[in-house]
Amino acid sequence: MSSRTPALAARWKRAELVEDLCDFVRIPSISAQPARAGDVRRAAAWLAARLRRAGLENVTIVTTPRHPIVTAGWRHAPGRPTVLVYGHYDVQPADPVAAWHTPPFAPAVRNGHLYGRGASDDKGQLLCHVFAVEELLRSQGRLPLNVVCLFEGEEEIGSPNLSPFLQKYRQAFAAEAAVVSDTRFLAPGRPAITYALRGGLGLEITVRTLRRDVHSGSFGGAVVNPIQVLAEMLCGMHNRDGRVAVPGFYRRVRMIDDVERAFMTRNGPDDTQIARDAASSAIVGEPGFTLYESTTIRPVLTFNGISGGYQGPGGKGIIPAQASAKISFRLVPDQRPDEIEQSVRKFLARLTPRGATLTVTTQQQSAPVIIDRRHAAIQAAAQAYRSGFGAAPVFLRSGGSIPIVRTFEEILGVPTVLMGFALPDDGMHAPNERFALQQLFQGVETCIHFLKNMSRLSPGELRRRSREPHDHRLPLSRRPG
Amino acid sequence: MSSRTPALAARWKRAELVEDLCDFVRIPSISAQPARAGDVRRAAAWLAARLRRAGLENVTIVTTPRHPIVTAGWRHAPGRPTVLVYGHYDVQPADPVAAWHTPPFAPAVRNGHLYGRGASDDKGQLLCHVFAVEELLRSQGRLPLNVVCLFEGEEEIGSPNLSPFLQKYRQAFAAEAAVVSDTRFLAPGRPAITYALRGGLGLEITVRTLRRDVHSGSFGGAVVNPIQVLAEMLCGMHNRDGRVAVPGFYRRVRMIDDVERAFMTRNGPDDTQIARDAASSAIVGEPGFTLYESTTIRPVLTFNGISGGYQGPGGKGIIPAQASAKISFRLVPDQRPDEIEQSVRKFLARLTPRGATLTVTTQQQSAPVIIDRRHAAIQAAAQAYRSGFGAAPVFLRSGGSIPIVRTFEEILGVPTVLMGFALPDDGMHAPNERFALQQLFQGVETCIHFLKNMSRLSPGELRRRSREPHDHRLPLSRRPG
Repeated sequence: MSSRTPALAARWKRAELVEDLCDFVRIPSISAQPARAGDVRRAAAWLAARLRRAGLENVTIVTTPRHPIVTAGWRHAPGRPTVLVYGHYDVQPADPVAAWHTPPFAPAVRNGHLYGRGASDDKGQLLCHVFAVEELLRSQGRLPLNVVCLFEGEEEIGSPNLSPFLQKYRQAFAAEAAVVSDTRFLAPGRPAITYALRGGLGLEITVRTLRRDVHSGSFGGAVVNPIQVLAEMLCGMHNRDGRVAVPGFYRRVRMIDDVERAFMTRNGPDDTQIARDAASSAIVGEPGFTLYESTTIRPVLTFNGISGGYQGPGGKGIIPAQASAKISFRLVPDQRPDEIEQSVRKFLARLTPRGATLTVTTQQQSAPVIIDRRHAAIQAAAQAYRSGFGAAPVFLRSGGSIPIVRTFEEILGVPTVLMGFALPDDGMHAPNERFALQQLFQGVETCIHFLKNMSRLSPGELRRRSREPHDHRLPLSRRPG
Repeated sequence: MSSRTPALAARWKRAELVEDLCDFVRIPSISAQPARAGDVRRAAAWLAARLRRAGLENVTIVTTPRHPIVTAGWRHAPGRPTVLVYGHYDVQPADPVAAWHTPPFAPAVRNGHLYGRGASDDKGQLLCHVFAVEELLRSQGRLPLNVVCLFEGEEEIGSPNLSPFLQKYRQAFAAEAAVVSDTRFLAPGRPAITYALRGGLGLEITVRTLRRDVHSGSFGGAVVNPIQVLAEMLCGMHNRDGRVAVPGFYRRVRMIDDVERAFMTRNGPDDTQIARDAASSAIVGEPGFTLYESTTIRPVLTFNGISGGYQGPGGKGIIPAQASAKISFRLVPDQRPDEIEQSVRKFLARLTPRGATLTVTTQQQSAPVIIDRRHAAIQAAAQAYRSGFGAAPVFLRSGGSIPIVRTFEEILGVPTVLMGFALPDDGMHAPNERFALQQLFQGVETCIHFLKNMSRLSPGELRRRSREPHDHRLPLSRRPG
């Protein structure tokens, strides 16, 4: 394996790199908001141009029913492995905008961090790979292996158009391994490879009891209030002990054995660190589990937004016609999103009182995933971290969802290396999101080493796989609570 | 008493009248929204100019810490009674704006109605009095009695600056009776005089559990969700039977005797009509009471707005830092708003879990009120309805709050005649608010007759009063539920 190469680092034009990321962050490519569709297209165009400049070939912007996919490749290393580089150039909404110290789409460098929506998730991390390819092509004139790039603009809305696209063009994306940088370090200086992700099920529920808002004086005491119905519905979704009340919700939850839980405890964050990362003292895990376990091997229901009636300054004497909530489940093996969705819909319908109308819209659905951490590509990434950051990575489970990992598995038959560069306090999805410039610089270096390490493996070695050997199922009788 | 005067009606320039109301409605004088403060001032200026044009004297725009008060008078009838005409030129917010068929501040006449925020509440009804005074001055050269006008721009935010103003200038507003047109008919063709109003207590409650929004994947299962805490808090405010759960809430609620309840049943709307007015099948009154009773002689807690987290299109994977609700109580005799507020604050504090911070802001507070319906001024209004609309009014309790009535009682010692012209389906406080032009025209006529009828009463007759003779207290032991 190659050792660290300070010579490379010195040659990078770091300022140029930061400038590129600023340009990228400046484009408000919020995939969830229809009004931003033009900006999402702009970000795709910017990225395509940047890929061409990096020396990648066949750069293509593929339109989809919603936001475009950007693809590129370099395939001049016959007999060598192919790495599929995936990233997403769309970002989360910037709400609440007022909570930002500098505007979300006016990137600002302060104290060694670049602040802006998407700086860390995922524009900065995505660019690490682009810079790495560019640097290798610039310095060597070629890559030591084949690369195919797939950058989408719909990750934050559940990648609705990626699977059909991959189904159709699976040949073009044939590879021995995929690499995605969209996950976090355990802490500064402590790299991490994520080997498990929770699945997701996002729903919007709307309760309507009136055709129109009515005067709360005239009708207060006579009509059913949709805010109250919604509040009761949300309350009814959890039992007193904090567990999800939807019947059958825990039925397929895989119990993790003591060996794996001990591994998690050795490698993962402890309760104190998770509380610190959340910057909160309002901490509550599932009884019988650590916070790390509660957020990774246990499913959960969270409420992400609520709205109804008057929300402006002061008061308004109304009973509103309707109220809505955005809720999402995080799912673990072997829960099935569609099965859970059916149970939830049935359950919510039962909670709906007479006179109220319930509408449930599915916004996102993804299955949980486990990656074999002994896979050769994972080991190549571990070694790359040692070279790029001077530290061996820990192996972590993540509570988040990256649906693409499951998609690569199912459609392309390709394992994914989750080699992230974000730090826990980057504020992904939050106001004042940032990316540490040092992570950017060392991230590029790590990506270079990853490609080099991968090039030394044979395609055959990379295809040898054992499925989920470190995640055993316990007999039902041993299930707690 | 004078009979109906079609001659007068014919002489009105009805088109001009509608045009004036359009001009008035066009000004978005939303008192609750600081950004609209300039528009509120504009409305005050427009109204002052209109009063001058009507022939009223001493027209003055009085600045207050927030929105101005507009005053005027005509006091050239010594020995005759003085009528205090009150109205408000501020309006409710227009939210949800998308629900309007035509923009809220672009008044539109359709099918004999003028649509626009404030058309009915209270700009249209306020102008009835201005037109009446103008018509009398134009046709007779003088008024048959003294008039003093008080028009405020803060009614929809609880009239915070009116009491201090009246305290200071009580001499200037000395009168035998006040008249306010800000209430509803029982139905088209069925005028109503309101003789009871509920009080109000408006609060905004905010729950915070985090310093900033966090990723719902990373932290879902580890941190307390403020939306959930808020939902539980709202649920906890009512018992299972729908009654308010705040300890002591019903302690001072006056029980109404059977004679008065029978009077209410004879005069008031039945359950079917209230359901029709609300355009809702989601109907629920307090057990043991009709809907009319539930909305008038019984107190209630309503939720007027709720917000927290992401509310835009699609989803957002966050646990928000905070969530808020706007709630309001409608109070009945002898509940005391400040006492209730203390109980509610104490109760909410108890419902706040560890790790969550609760903020409660008081937005509005007003006491309930009862007016003696046998008062001479009330009888003058009843007769005016007969002349203006050809129908005797019913006597109604209203579920709404008009804090000024209590203020007039306490500061000026003056009874208030609630002689409204709105129709139940005017959509006060709701999208597509409207005022029927026929109500406007006949409302003016009624106001003219009211002033004439009042002029025939002696100040002495008008000062004879019995306090609340039709609203007896029952012994505590007879309280239901």
